[in-house]
Amino acid sequence: MSEEAIAKFTQSVTDGDPRAIARALRLVDDRRAPYLDILKRLHAHTGRAYTIGITGTPGAGKSTLVGALVTAIREKGMRVAVIAIDPTSPFSGGAILGDRIRMQKHFLDEGVFIRSVATRGNLGGLSRSTADIARVLDAAGFDIILIETVGVGQDELEIAKTADTTIVVVAPGLGDDIQAIKAGILEIADVFCVNKADRDGADAAVADLEQMIGMGALTEAARKAGPHGHSAAMALLRAKPSDEDGSFHPKVVRTIAREGKGVGELLERCQEHRAYLEKSGLGATRRRERLERELQLIFREALLEKSEERLNDEFERAYERLHEKSDPYTEAQRLVDALLDMKE
Amino acid sequence: MSEEAIAKFTQSVTDGDPRAIARALRLVDDRRAPYLDILKRLHAHTGRAYTIGITGTPGAGKSTLVGALVTAIREKGMRVAVIAIDPTSPFSGGAILGDRIRMQKHFLDEGVFIRSVATRGNLGGLSRSTADIARVLDAAGFDIILIETVGVGQDELEIAKTADTTIVVVAPGLGDDIQAIKAGILEIADVFCVNKADRDGADAAVADLEQMIGMGALTEAARKAGPHGHSAAMALLRAKPSDEDGSFHPKVVRTIAREGKGVGELLERCQEHRAYLEKSGLGATRRRERLERELQLIFREALLEKSEERLNDEFERAYERLHEKSDPYTEAQRLVDALLDMKE
Repeated sequence: MSEEAIAKFTQSVTDGDPRAIARALRLVDDRRAPYLDILKRLHAHTGRAYTIGITGTPGAGKSTLVGALVTAIREKGMRVAVIAIDPTSPFSGGAILGDRIRMQKHFLDEGVFIRSVATRGNLGGLSRSTADIARVLDAAGFDIILIETVGVGQDELEIAKTADTTIVVVAPGLGDDIQAIKAGILEIADVFCVNKADRDGADAAVADLEQMIGMGALTEAARKAGPHGHSAAMALLRAKPSDEDGSFHPKVVRTIAREGKGVGELLERCQEHRAYLEKSGLGATRRRERLERELQLIFREALLEKSEERLNDEFERAYERLHEKSDPYTEAQRLVDALLDMKE
Repeated sequence: MSEEAIAKFTQSVTDGDPRAIARALRLVDDRRAPYLDILKRLHAHTGRAYTIGITGTPGAGKSTLVGALVTAIREKGMRVAVIAIDPTSPFSGGAILGDRIRMQKHFLDEGVFIRSVATRGNLGGLSRSTADIARVLDAAGFDIILIETVGVGQDELEIAKTADTTIVVVAPGLGDDIQAIKAGILEIADVFCVNKADRDGADAAVADLEQMIGMGALTEAARKAGPHGHSAAMALLRAKPSDEDGSFHPKVVRTIAREGKGVGELLERCQEHRAYLEKSGLGATRRRERLERELQLIFREALLEKSEERLNDEFERAYERLHEKSDPYTEAQRLVDALLDMKE
């Protein structure tokens, strides 16, 4: 593609042309030229979309919830894109179609765009892909981008960092899982969603989460109050955690996603979090950090690609020594030294 | 630690001293000095252990099966180590204890060693950690190392490459999952285990898997027979796939892990696969490939560590430009160029 053709093409993407968007995403997915030029050009058009990550334990009904959120967002007249990340897809070589089928009622709606992402290799590949896809969709003018991850692993933690607001979905009866993930989940959840709230155990799940949030707030207040402020912090927090001191505490919302119940409130809580991000300046800080992290990921990928290309012969010799009497630790160090002392 | 102290310490590990093994694993886990010296020294003592990967869909009963395999292996008088990889652990900051509790009946048995692994960052960190841990346990003289992964994601695929033999566990009633992962699963499974075989649907699951194996064998035979050999291959394969032609076709075994039923047979099928690996020379090839992949992972980690250290100031300047009017793609390329044209 000529410089001019690329400019015209990215124009179609920023105009919101669905075919251009789909083509841009394919090029980005395959890392096929001129994907880098496209991403560079689109960069100036990004930074407007609001991204919401949806994660949680399997079986909590995340996908149904995402469908209900799409409906609620469309009712407000906003354009919405969904990035669905499916961990089973490396086995099938591509994302499975389940989520698309679930979403078929939105298929003919140009205000909705749905994209499945397969995980690709290691090296932070998943978060890199997700960030690139979110960037294209942002430039294409979607108001809200929903990122759905399946499960609660390391990948999901990485992807949570890509979102402005993270919803952690739980369901009654999966209590053991809540216990297991309790320790670190406060850090990534901005809004908790107790889905399937008509089931037995919903009250207990809400109480559990609220207690957890209260404990988190207490610890934070005690830390702020300093070594002698613990009792002051205790007094401060006898009541429910409030946002009056200017900080934000995760909210708990009950939903019955398949009936659309509570989904409007869930969206409102997210919007409150978004308002807090902007007012506090935290939103700007996060966007800066996110951009820096993206730079790191792109740097890593580019460096490894380049270095393996340059060290091609050296790798062959290292393999030979490895199979004779050396070990991988010694050889790895030798290769690093060789690369960094080389000139083109 | 002095050179002499390291030599003495690694000697304790290769002698099988449980405390020394545990300490070595902690150092390796934390990447704390002198972990590299320890791994280098242990390398010469590795290559004896037989590693079995156990993966499959959640709910198939993998953990119970691992417990039953441990019992069966101990009954044969062999020493066994278990590496349990838990994807929920990044949330809790460390591996949860569930699997250890499940295994408590083996707790006082010095012939059994159980280790949980937390996933750590991206960059192939999980497979690197697993490989290092397996290496220590191999040098410590365990005859069999079981690597249990939870789920069927990209990490599991990577870890499957670490094992000599991979068992894929399924259970009746999880049929949809089998369909979803069908396409690629043949490539990693050496033995299929239909667990909970007393449940309805076990026969269907076995038939499903056998048909899948047959199709795989057919495709392979047709490929070998060349463009005009398709009908010959068809004729060859009208019967069940057999191993008479010197190739190995995955086996299907039924188990009821909680009663220990079928577990002896499962272990026998694994041993048959191991014998096939050695006889065919494929085992040696895989070990070579594995070592080369490990070298690559260690190289990547060392290179990134070194480069981020060297580029510290350049990164700061790149961040500044990024927040003004540049984009992460341009800055990443600039950093790569800066690194590779630098001298110390």
